Amino acid sequence: MTKRMAGNNRFLKEFNQTVILDMIRVHKAISRAELSKLTGLSPTAAGVIVNELLEMGYITESGIGESKGGRRPVLIELRPGSLYSIGIDMDVNYISLVLMDSTSRIIEEKMLAMPRTLIFEKVMKVIQHEVKNTINKYYLDTDRLLGIGFSVPGMVDSRECKVIFAPNMGWENVDIKQHFTELPDIKVYVENEAMASAIGENWIGCCQEISNFVCVNIKSGVGSGIFINGKPYRGANGITGEIGHMVVDPNGLKCRCGNYGCLETKTSSSYMVEQAKKLVKEGIASKLNDIEDIEEITAKSIIDSAKAGDEAARNILLDAARFLGLAISNIVNILNPQKIVLGKEFINYSDIVLDHLKEIVMLKALRQSSKDIEITESMLGERASALGSAIIPLKVFFGK
Amino acid sequence: MTKRMAGNNRFLKEFNQTVILDMIRVHKAISRAELSKLTGLSPTAAGVIVNELLEMGYITESGIGESKGGRRPVLIELRPGSLYSIGIDMDVNYISLVLMDSTSRIIEEKMLAMPRTLIFEKVMKVIQHEVKNTINKYYLDTDRLLGIGFSVPGMVDSRECKVIFAPNMGWENVDIKQHFTELPDIKVYVENEAMASAIGENWIGCCQEISNFVCVNIKSGVGSGIFINGKPYRGANGITGEIGHMVVDPNGLKCRCGNYGCLETKTSSSYMVEQAKKLVKEGIASKLNDIEDIEEITAKSIIDSAKAGDEAARNILLDAARFLGLAISNIVNILNPQKIVLGKEFINYSDIVLDHLKEIVMLKALRQSSKDIEITESMLGERASALGSAIIPLKVFFGK
Repeated sequence: MTKRMAGNNRFLKEFNQTVILDMIRVHKAISRAELSKLTGLSPTAAGVIVNELLEMGYITESGIGESKGGRRPVLIELRPGSLYSIGIDMDVNYISLVLMDSTSRIIEEKMLAMPRTLIFEKVMKVIQHEVKNTINKYYLDTDRLLGIGFSVPGMVDSRECKVIFAPNMGWENVDIKQHFTELPDIKVYVENEAMASAIGENWIGCCQEISNFVCVNIKSGVGSGIFINGKPYRGANGITGEIGHMVVDPNGLKCRCGNYGCLETKTSSSYMVEQAKKLVKEGIASKLNDIEDIEEITAKSIIDSAKAGDEAARNILLDAARFLGLAISNIVNILNPQKIVLGKEFINYSDIVLDHLKEIVMLKALRQSSKDIEITESMLGERASALGSAIIPLKVFFGK
Repeated sequence: MTKRMAGNNRFLKEFNQTVILDMIRVHKAISRAELSKLTGLSPTAAGVIVNELLEMGYITESGIGESKGGRRPVLIELRPGSLYSIGIDMDVNYISLVLMDSTSRIIEEKMLAMPRTLIFEKVMKVIQHEVKNTINKYYLDTDRLLGIGFSVPGMVDSRECKVIFAPNMGWENVDIKQHFTELPDIKVYVENEAMASAIGENWIGCCQEISNFVCVNIKSGVGSGIFINGKPYRGANGITGEIGHMVVDPNGLKCRCGNYGCLETKTSSSYMVEQAKKLVKEGIASKLNDIEDIEEITAKSIIDSAKAGDEAARNILLDAARFLGLAISNIVNILNPQKIVLGKEFINYSDIVLDHLKEIVMLKALRQSSKDIEITESMLGERASALGSAIIPLKVFFGK
């Protein structure tokens, strides 16, 4: 009984510490008196917890606040560099690594090109090497590393830390935790890349005060991360937001999922490249600006050509945006979110298509569902998933 | 300060009563000792609350439970007929009224045919007359009437108790509370008909233990009610689940929302009737069984013809189900719900099309999203919205 009570007390102590820490995080700088007032804990109890956190080095006294009568209070804030988190965004031809501290300050951000043919085991080896380099470079104490978040372009089982299916990576049923052997004591988390972006937007991006929103990422594939009531929405099996396989044209092309006319076959970067090659081959577009070899056409070259005034390239982007707008209007009719954030490759041609896409949504979605919707490009840009994956261990630490 | 404390104590007392009442509801019959154990309240405190509730007549001692050593305990249950609720389902050509008690027992259920041309004010007059008749018939004490729930086929503002837009009824911005003048002290609630069905399925139907599900109702229109994490999902403006206006065929017919190729133009009863008339006119279908006058074709006659073996009628239903399956596979990909319940008119031809619809969903939705999905017809049938609307005041009473 005594032992159990001790256990419960310990739990409550940690719970109180977490609540106080998160309150300091949200308020950025706050006095002991305000913490006592906001938590309902007595000034003494709040003071004890603050002292414990100071002793652990998680927080610091940062300055003097404004007086509300009497002595001006000492303000407390999270101590920069006291606790760390690492995020890894895995993609078809690159890996991004972000080192962040508990104040969400970015300490290091790097991108590594990866050959598309690399098998999962090799990718994990490269990542472990990079993580160790980063730890050594900054003399990080691994006790202060809250965890490593992985972002994967595919379906994941975030509870079991596994990748269920990532077709663009060629991965099926691979266990990230099992292959992360070099630092066995570090907590590892796995998230779908679009959900990782949504987590990033919610923590440090454009959805910080927003409960119901959808982040749509456009790249070689198309996916979305859905937040409902302020939390990632996971459904029955954790496979949600698969907007890329929404059928937008029942008579359309075959998709790699086996179906016909999925959004991915209309709006992904790979589709746009196929479309451009076809137009050039058929002589409908002479050539996209000064690309000589048809096989050299990439999403980037289409976007560059469109920006340089090439009508055919521009139309490819607008056509893709039209179908994306159609799919988003379906999402608006079903989920009536407050905000839609468009990310990844999209931000590179957002200036050309965003207005057109908004028009489509306003035209296609029910007026009552769409009247207050905000549709915007991601401010975190292509970094959203890497940042979001670094934030996952922070969310756990702050009890969010 | 003393007054505020008294207020808080009063609030806490009501809160405790509500928790205990809901526990009795969920367990159906439960002893004082079990209530104390489950709530963490002391046996004395739990006993005090039980006695208060007995005194108010909300609960009753019902029998003797099994002994767990010692005296066999007295069991407590909700007292049938102690508290009432009324539900009204308003539709194009009928009104359904349900009188229910707090045990979810149905005391009266009636359906009134309504001329389609009747204006809102007249409909409200008829309803008030019926409500008063019902109250008089059962000698109901209006103090014991928990409230009246209205179910409307359209967009509602459930917080403000208004109908925003119900195109099939011809209603826009009408205030139900304001027109319900005969019983000004009775609490009034308004809900969309598909959400009312979902509430019904969750309380007494086939989704009682299910957190994430979607009820799709097919009639003259097509709508859906979405439950997420065990609660109705309302989004930013309360306009969610508008599956009827999901674009399933970008080259399709014009919908009454102004858009083209919405699901409603493919799968609603009114569309099926149009389709049948067209086929007969064009001589593709000779005639639907023995319907002589083309203008007499109704959804019912199509269903009857299909059941009697008419191929053309059967194909109309299967074709409608194909598009419904397509829309549902989109919902499955986005929301990954545990269950989809199909209701209203659909249950009358479910035996002909449900297997086909399931095949489409299995074919079109991503395997990982659809593998555990259950797709079923509503067991509450066409009554789901009327029952659900009667349940709304009960949910409020039980703090749900």
